[in-house]
Amino acid sequence: MCLIMETDDHEAVVLAPPSNFSMVEDGIYRSGFPRPENFSFLKTLNLRSTIYLCPEPYPEENLQFLEANNIKLYQFGIEGKTDPPTAMPKDTVLDALRVLVDVRNHPILIHCKRGKHRTGCLVGCLRKVQSWCLSSVLEEYQKNAGLKWRQRDLNFIETFDIVSLRQCLLSIIYQYHGYGFKRRRLAYEEETIQTPKPQAAKV
Amino acid sequence: MCLIMETDDHEAVVLAPPSNFSMVEDGIYRSGFPRPENFSFLKTLNLRSTIYLCPEPYPEENLQFLEANNIKLYQFGIEGKTDPPTAMPKDTVLDALRVLVDVRNHPILIHCKRGKHRTGCLVGCLRKVQSWCLSSVLEEYQKNAGLKWRQRDLNFIETFDIVSLRQCLLSIIYQYHGYGFKRRRLAYEEETIQTPKPQAAKV
Repeated sequence: MCLIMETDDHEAVVLAPPSNFSMVEDGIYRSGFPRPENFSFLKTLNLRSTIYLCPEPYPEENLQFLEANNIKLYQFGIEGKTDPPTAMPKDTVLDALRVLVDVRNHPILIHCKRGKHRTGCLVGCLRKVQSWCLSSVLEEYQKNAGLKWRQRDLNFIETFDIVSLRQCLLSIIYQYHGYGFKRRRLAYEEETIQTPKPQAAKV
Repeated sequence: MCLIMETDDHEAVVLAPPSNFSMVEDGIYRSGFPRPENFSFLKTLNLRSTIYLCPEPYPEENLQFLEANNIKLYQFGIEGKTDPPTAMPKDTVLDALRVLVDVRNHPILIHCKRGKHRTGCLVGCLRKVQSWCLSSVLEEYQKNAGLKWRQRDLNFIETFDIVSLRQCLLSIIYQYHGYGFKRRRLAYEEETIQTPKPQAAKV
């Protein structure tokens, strides 16, 4: 939280978050496409990574901003509005979700073009992983999509199977630490698959 | 962030955030009126306090939830829809803002009835304190109010004077600490008013 921002020469800066910006979780943010006028705001988030959900190449000025601030780009090329409408690709969303739940990538910004449909579906799937009840998940999707909400996105979120993600998580560790108040942190450990050993056939 | 919630007897819990719930900042949340079915979700936030912006008494079951979880209640009785419409009381919003920016009260939940107008105005004023540009502040207000947004709330936020709040803050300290990644924390220190000493009249 920043109350007063100052530049190096002590002038006040007015901060402009990207369109449709909001905080999803501690260390997870979402928005529409960031423009150069949003860069000074984005710097205050101390981002480690960005999940970009469109197939179009990332603009040069945005790439330069990421590089200058040591922010990693994860691009998952999901098509936007198509005619006829195509289904959201489950496997791609699952790949993005794997990046998203890994706290080593946090703080992280998820964005597509408007932060409504592709971003909304990914966040919706995250909420399912977090055990949010479905009506709350859909309410959040709709709040961020506004009048542009799509029934097929709601269906996608509802039917998205999170079991496959859970299987790739070995353990979730809460660590409580605080400075006057409790604060939670999620640690994420790599999956260690226990391969069953071949057994001798019983006679 | 919680990926899998379990009760003491290891049954899965489905978490239902209050209506119109979202995260404002690290340690600051907003929503509509919390109902008993939202209590298990609210427990996961480890709240220290709640800012309640309606004049109506807090329901007994909500009071019990706060007491059981050691959550402090700050009530600021702002009237909701009135006929004729009344102006948002600036001094009351300023009092609420003083509670809100004090990190000793975090994590904190702001709510009124629907989390749209009274909550939206308070969060809007917070964003001004945070140096957000006005168009972003108003976009956030409208996103949360949906079709129910009110022009007079936008006017209230736009004309709200934050200088009086800044005067009551002695210092803002950023502390960076992290576990693999940077994290910011805002420390807030009590105001120490330097009372000017009476001077002998110049002859």
